[in-house]
Amino acid sequence: MFITAQFDSGNIEVIEANTPDNIQLAIRKDNQSEFYQWFHFKLYGEPGVEHVMHINNAGQSAYPDGWKEYSALASYDRENWFRVPTEFNGKELIIRHSPDQESVYYAYFTPYSYERHQDLVQWAQQSIECQHVLLGPTLDGRDMNLLVIGEADDQKNKIWITARQHPGESMAEWFIEGLLSRLLDDEDGTARKLLENNVFYVVPNMNPDGSVRGHLRTNAVGVNLNREWAEPSVEKSPEVYYVLQAMQETGVDFYLDVHGDEALPYNFLAGCEGVPSYTDEMHQVGEKFKQILLAITPEFQVEHGYEVDKPGEANLTVASNAVSERFNCLAFTLEMPFKDNANLPDVDFGWSANRSQQFGADVLSAIYGIANSLRS
Amino acid sequence: MFITAQFDSGNIEVIEANTPDNIQLAIRKDNQSEFYQWFHFKLYGEPGVEHVMHINNAGQSAYPDGWKEYSALASYDRENWFRVPTEFNGKELIIRHSPDQESVYYAYFTPYSYERHQDLVQWAQQSIECQHVLLGPTLDGRDMNLLVIGEADDQKNKIWITARQHPGESMAEWFIEGLLSRLLDDEDGTARKLLENNVFYVVPNMNPDGSVRGHLRTNAVGVNLNREWAEPSVEKSPEVYYVLQAMQETGVDFYLDVHGDEALPYNFLAGCEGVPSYTDEMHQVGEKFKQILLAITPEFQVEHGYEVDKPGEANLTVASNAVSERFNCLAFTLEMPFKDNANLPDVDFGWSANRSQQFGADVLSAIYGIANSLRS
Amino acid sequence: MFITAQFDSGNIEVIEANTPDNIQLAIRKDNQSEFYQWFHFKLYGEPGVEHVMHINNAGQSAYPDGWKEYSALASYDRENWFRVPTEFNGKELIIRHSPDQESVYYAYFTPYSYERHQDLVQWAQQSIECQHVLLGPTLDGRDMNLLVIGEADDQKNKIWITARQHPGESMAEWFIEGLLSRLLDDEDGTARKLLENNVFYVVPNMNPDGSVRGHLRTNAVGVNLNREWAEPSVEKSPEVYYVLQAMQETGVDFYLDVHGDEALPYNFLAGCEGVPSYTDEMHQVGEKFKQILLAITPEFQVEHGYEVDKPGEANLTVASNAVSERFNCLAFTLEMPFKDNANLPDVDFGWSANRSQQFGADVLSAIYGIANSLRS
Amino acid sequence: MFITAQFDSGNIEVIEANTPDNIQLAIRKDNQSEFYQWFHFKLYGEPGVEHVMHINNAGQSAYPDGWKEYSALASYDRENWFRVPTEFNGKELIIRHSPDQESVYYAYFTPYSYERHQDLVQWAQQSIECQHVLLGPTLDGRDMNLLVIGEADDQKNKIWITARQHPGESMAEWFIEGLLSRLLDDEDGTARKLLENNVFYVVPNMNPDGSVRGHLRTNAVGVNLNREWAEPSVEKSPEVYYVLQAMQETGVDFYLDVHGDEALPYNFLAGCEGVPSYTDEMHQVGEKFKQILLAITPEFQVEHGYEVDKPGEANLTVASNAVSERFNCLAFTLEMPFKDNANLPDVDFGWSANRSQQFGADVLSAIYGIANSLRS
Ligand SMILES: [Ca+2]
Ligand SMILES: [Ca+2]
Ligand SMILES: [Ca+2]
Ligand SMILES: [Ca+2]
Repeated sequence: MFITAQFDSGNIEVIEANTPDNIQLAIRKDNQSEFYQWFHFKLYGEPGVEHVMHINNAGQSAYPDGWKEYSALASYDRENWFRVPTEFNGKELIIRHSPDQESVYYAYFTPYSYERHQDLVQWAQQSIECQHVLLGPTLDGRDMNLLVIGEADDQKNKIWITARQHPGESMAEWFIEGLLSRLLDDEDGTARKLLENNVFYVVPNMNPDGSVRGHLRTNAVGVNLNREWAEPSVEKSPEVYYVLQAMQETGVDFYLDVHGDEALPYNFLAGCEGVPSYTDEMHQVGEKFKQILLAITPEFQVEHGYEVDKPGEANLTVASNAVSERFNCLAFTLEMPFKDNANLPDVDFGWSANRSQQFGADVLSAIYGIANSLRS
Repeated sequence: MFITAQFDSGNIEVIEANTPDNIQLAIRKDNQSEFYQWFHFKLYGEPGVEHVMHINNAGQSAYPDGWKEYSALASYDRENWFRVPTEFNGKELIIRHSPDQESVYYAYFTPYSYERHQDLVQWAQQSIECQHVLLGPTLDGRDMNLLVIGEADDQKNKIWITARQHPGESMAEWFIEGLLSRLLDDEDGTARKLLENNVFYVVPNMNPDGSVRGHLRTNAVGVNLNREWAEPSVEKSPEVYYVLQAMQETGVDFYLDVHGDEALPYNFLAGCEGVPSYTDEMHQVGEKFKQILLAITPEFQVEHGYEVDKPGEANLTVASNAVSERFNCLAFTLEMPFKDNANLPDVDFGWSANRSQQFGADVLSAIYGIANSLRS
Repeated sequence: MFITAQFDSGNIEVIEANTPDNIQLAIRKDNQSEFYQWFHFKLYGEPGVEHVMHINNAGQSAYPDGWKEYSALASYDRENWFRVPTEFNGKELIIRHSPDQESVYYAYFTPYSYERHQDLVQWAQQSIECQHVLLGPTLDGRDMNLLVIGEADDQKNKIWITARQHPGESMAEWFIEGLLSRLLDDEDGTARKLLENNVFYVVPNMNPDGSVRGHLRTNAVGVNLNREWAEPSVEKSPEVYYVLQAMQETGVDFYLDVHGDEALPYNFLAGCEGVPSYTDEMHQVGEKFKQILLAITPEFQVEHGYEVDKPGEANLTVASNAVSERFNCLAFTLEMPFKDNANLPDVDFGWSANRSQQFGADVLSAIYGIANSLRS
Repeated sequence: MFITAQFDSGNIEVIEANTPDNIQLAIRKDNQSEFYQWFHFKLYGEPGVEHVMHINNAGQSAYPDGWKEYSALASYDRENWFRVPTEFNGKELIIRHSPDQESVYYAYFTPYSYERHQDLVQWAQQSIECQHVLLGPTLDGRDMNLLVIGEADDQKNKIWITARQHPGESMAEWFIEGLLSRLLDDEDGTARKLLENNVFYVVPNMNPDGSVRGHLRTNAVGVNLNREWAEPSVEKSPEVYYVLQAMQETGVDFYLDVHGDEALPYNFLAGCEGVPSYTDEMHQVGEKFKQILLAITPEFQVEHGYEVDKPGEANLTVASNAVSERFNCLAFTLEMPFKDNANLPDVDFGWSANRSQQFGADVLSAIYGIANSLRS
């Protein structure tokens, strides 16, 4: 038996792995941080034998509620990921699986590798509608990539979409892939019409360092980027610093920041009701955005979500609030589940890469429905 | 130089083809009928030389208005079809093209072959959600195929969708392919939710004989199937006879009949306002259906279309009217253009197979939006 | 239950098909001919129930030995074909199969449709190395297609390859597809080197009319093309007439005519030892060709095959003999099995489309090995 | 402008990159080693502007002769790699390129990423013929993967194939991918016949640590694995240690160690003529192996290569020699070029990933030809 996490976004520590029925593991903390929850490792074991994997430190992870009714993902070929029996006893997360093959990968959610990220950027760049902009280096020396889609023009809405500030929320980049596939399809009518009056600024991965390092929530130096939007710095949060700088050059008329939520088994939006300059008009356009999503996909709902901020009580270090306030625009945090959509459960796969992609494509339809109302 | 139409859905007659600058052609009439407009042929010519193809009898075709601002489709590889310069002088349709390769196919619209039809049926059949039902033989001995999607249940809505009564309207089967691809995708949330409460009965091709024969509008014996719904017969319109028989067994709660329109450069719906039993309730649900489509795709519009029938004046030999009246349900004829969507023109490709597929997928979203209102 | 053969290369007549356990069928004869053996039909039946299909007239077919140890091919998706239990009692061929799906296709061998043929020609044409030449019309009005690969040059060998004179031998066109895929691959070293000194003239389908009609052995008017090479005529055998005409314009340095053999479960070559002008030199080059094939693939063998013609006793109406004699070149008939390669049996699939393709690719290696010896 | 190598197998140091016409770069040395030659980086520059990239320390790299007549590889999409103008002045390697897109990747040879390596292993594992064996950890904690193909049996030949001891020789793993694709194709006759009497032991990547680190020649601690076969250690060369251990358990009847050569523009084999126990019989089988390759592919040749070792003078620290001597078997080092095959040059692509794959597939044909002679 052998367990390794020595690969892109790998994260596990082996405490003991001598017999299949007693595998003791722990998740590594994000570098210079107390956060941890993301795991991703390869087991080389015995086909047909049940392997019982205890993640010992699950109870003290960032979101212990995330483990309730959660099932881990497994894959033999790293392309098809399925759920395997998992239980949480308040202390340990226990994964039980009898693999069909010698080796299996397990992960908190279907990984989106840095290789795929690079492929995505290079693929998008080749579209005549898309320009690749390099914003600057991360602390580990990776490049912050921005894709500008549509020809720039002052008259057009500037729509900003960022994803994966929290690197363990890989569904956020699957969402972006689905959205981009549609936005760059030159026979998709919605995309073509959108590009007549809107320019999209898409950051597929806000946190490449954390992604490669197998972090849950922070960048290379343990900083939670989604608390850095008040005063980002090149030293500690260059990812936010460079993006905010670019936003200032373009302006922002609508902003979507894409995330995954560990606990809630639903897709939902968190608005910026608490920012000082929030307006009724914003609220109405925001409601229309939700209504269209509700009408076109059962993957979306509005009953479950975060508590709405009271007027003026928004945390302005958070991306969606900060951008809304600074640019006086409608902004949302979009959350997808790690578990499943409880309104439409799928026992075998749960919430998945494919569903994230489809949701990304569907969100374009909702943006199309409000695009004319974004500038008053 | 050589011109042939001796293949699936081929249609052309060569009057004279001696020099590239003077190719004289005519479209064959549908068998036992005066209708003609569909063409599909292969030219073997000289790369780099302009070929001027005159379709001599275009002026007397079924829809001469169809030739105005129309551009013919061409393809080297039979997969990618693009528009080539075409003019209509009231009498002849003149296609001018300097091919890059030795041989080129030309067609009125991107063909959907009978081989592909068979592949589609066999592919769909393999889904656990889909049952293949063979309704009976056509006059040429082909099989009328029905796909039943979702587990039958009296409580569920019965949604019927038929396509290509008029075989030259090949976009109708591309539409079905797009719709089925989504409906049978087991990770598509809209599809999964729809199948909880709805059963779909889909006839991908109502007129296989006419399709293979290269007809525009009629079946093997020159019958316009969309005028046979009052009293279809096994002798002259078995295609309609068998489908109506199956509808009577299942009932119908919503019906969509998919077509192409030769003249209007728009996607639109024609309702059944003129049927005796039309109700306000139907009207409201129908309007909601249109509103959702308007909200999600610029490929749809409601300004251009057919004149609305006055109450009680519907032609009850037409499928959508006949089915609405007989089953007391909402029904539409859905029309797509041969030319382009003038609201979103694409000079290179015009309305296309891909756009038809995407529209088919989008229509599912609109059905999802009204599904709960189909039974009162 | 319903059985139809009303599609490309379909062939069956239904005598009785009322209950799954007693389906009585017959194969149609080729038009204006006594030959028959090819069958291809669709059964719409009951999943999970054994269907017993009796082909009543199998015992009087062209090659009754072909039915011994033969298993019919079946497919649900028309792409993956597998063998099903089949027995021959000297009179009837009996196929027993309990389908997993509502409908299944059965065939004598994996069909190669006319649609795919057209796709192949158009695909090949797009290569810069390939020129599409249209030789003339068949009796049904189809086009005889020749692909010329490599830039013409008097110094280069002219290598002619024809396939499917007998339309029921569909493996011959699968072989061509495999050979062309490699020959037109611009990163395949063997192909690139071959094209430096050789020009290939490939006729992927010598008998398109018979292929579409579901014939075994003859063209539209019942003529066996492989007995027409002494004196082909535009009236009865235009397929051969036009090809021979083109050969006379180019000359021939090596000729391969690709076939399937109903009885022998082996791949083998039949030479032209019996033609008057056969030489020792030809013999040696031919032996080298066989030796290379033996060395590189277990799919080839030399123990089983046709009896070798005695000197001067060759039938000069047969393609390989006629071409060898007329052009004084090495020529072979290449035969593949309908059953299997008994040296490497595959119970599930038998000889297959994939194996035919791979064999076509491998034959290029053997041509490469003798190319320098083709002109003395 | 921005240059980064912070990704899988990245290697470059930026000395100065302020203007496109004067980009000064250097290749990093392998960790704890003086070797360097592999480079791989992403340039974010200006489309349409010539970028002149000087690799300053090229003249002191491991194989300065490798830069003569060498052209660097470039790719926009990381899938299609093409050659760009490159010159070597004895000191610097100068790459000149005007990119069509904002960003471009450059590399010494088409990279084979560790992600792709993992995909390959997982894909292979799923074959019923293939068993995945994990040999042990590398120094960086990666897993050494062995693929066992064919059912083990004492009577069968044990054929070992290893690749990429030198991690910068990425063509070696492309070769393995081509070889495995064929060996695991259950309709490939050669593969099926080979597996009747032979078991293959394939190590796709002998040096995963060096590969990820962007090394040319050594493992994580600067050790050249191809000089460790006399006495490998878990501490310094676990990669060799574990493989040799596994070889001892199985025995070896034929061994191929796959490499790339920096200087010679040819594919060639280096034998083990200098090992003490070399025999005439080995020599004859080896010659037959070469003869078959010569007969079937112009990518192979025997005129250019390394000098043959004199009897008894082999370096027994080298894999092929060590294995030949220890297991008394025929063994070869197979070398492919970084540049091109000068016998069949391709100005646009040079020697390529595709050609490496095809060569891997072709080598199987040659093994098939000698398999019966491997045990005397
Ligand atoms: Ca671009
Ligand atoms: Ca089914
Ligand atoms: Ca060409
Ligand atoms: Ca396996």
